[in-house]
Amino acid sequence: MPNLRVHNLTVSLDGFAAGPRQRLEHPLGEGFEGLHEWMFAAMRDRADGKTGIDVEYVERSEENIGATIMGRNMFGPQRGPWQDESWKGWWGDNPPYHNDVFVHTHHLRPSLAMEGGTTFHFTDEPIETVLGRAYEAAAGKDVRIGGGPATIQQYLRAGLIDELHLAIVPELLGRGERLFDNLGDGIDGYRVAELVGSPAVTHARLVRR
Amino acid sequence: MPNLRVHNLTVSLDGFAAGPRQRLEHPLGEGFEGLHEWMFAAMRDRADGKTGIDVEYVERSEENIGATIMGRNMFGPQRGPWQDESWKGWWGDNPPYHNDVFVHTHHLRPSLAMEGGTTFHFTDEPIETVLGRAYEAAAGKDVRIGGGPATIQQYLRAGLIDELHLAIVPELLGRGERLFDNLGDGIDGYRVAELVGSPAVTHARLVRR
Repeated sequence: MPNLRVHNLTVSLDGFAAGPRQRLEHPLGEGFEGLHEWMFAAMRDRADGKTGIDVEYVERSEENIGATIMGRNMFGPQRGPWQDESWKGWWGDNPPYHNDVFVHTHHLRPSLAMEGGTTFHFTDEPIETVLGRAYEAAAGKDVRIGGGPATIQQYLRAGLIDELHLAIVPELLGRGERLFDNLGDGIDGYRVAELVGSPAVTHARLVRR
Repeated sequence: MPNLRVHNLTVSLDGFAAGPRQRLEHPLGEGFEGLHEWMFAAMRDRADGKTGIDVEYVERSEENIGATIMGRNMFGPQRGPWQDESWKGWWGDNPPYHNDVFVHTHHLRPSLAMEGGTTFHFTDEPIETVLGRAYEAAAGKDVRIGGGPATIQQYLRAGLIDELHLAIVPELLGRGERLFDNLGDGIDGYRVAELVGSPAVTHARLVRR
């Protein structure tokens, strides 16, 4: 059975997965700049042929993924109805997904085929329906939720996520969107399977109980 | 200059420092039983002459402490006015403090001298006043805040804490009292000086920025 996975979800030590006031200049919210540096460092290390815990986690995040789900705030800084359809995501002409990406939004627009095999689909369907479409698109591979926190919370609350990897960074944000919030009893279905530190961050992995 | 310190503050991976519905049968709130096991294991290890990161942190927590501050909920399960004064804390006749302990409460009672040098003082004074009394009682040594979360938050929000050590345990509580909450801008005065994992837990140390 294919799984629904979350990887490299970076949270500050005080539990925030995004800063306040997300906008074009602050895609991840104010103060969150730099909190993903551990991941970019791991990618550079991997390119240089180095190994380590962080590199292992980044490699694992890319294995066997056949489709992607994200919230609209991860796709772009716009809120409300699209003013036009010129925005094609943060990632340029060749986004790093290379598969079907399902974007949750109340404001639909036609699917958007990009270079490199990434196609963005915009949907206002329930999460269970979207997940079904994503599994179908993944054709036997796993589905990954990219983010952001509100989207991950919806799937976690419903118990639909099979594995969630988060990286706790040694920073205090003070404000923003918490990861562990709005989860209701959904969180009771999970346990911490792993808690391990690298020199840069602490990795945790949640799996079903 | 003596410091105000917090040690061995145990939080679940989802950020809770106490469970819900604290009472006699659940001094730390429901679900929190067992979350301090890392600390007891470290104490046993130390007694057996073993070393390790957890043992080092527990040893550090006991060094150079001259007085203690705690909230009333840490002293006992009672709420509201004292029905009588027979309750003398959770710790038996010889509490593990061996110094003056200042208990924040709206419901005063006479100071309580116990065996082994522990004297509980009950006070409804402002935190700055209580801290002044504690420093005086400590006679040049540091002061430690025992807990709980609400008391630590008050001192942290006011920027009065010099060092805060927390231990993140690989458990999900789902509900309870968050550590990083109600801190206002006070948290902006702090940074994470250390984030290091042992096989059991992840230790973090906050110091002033």
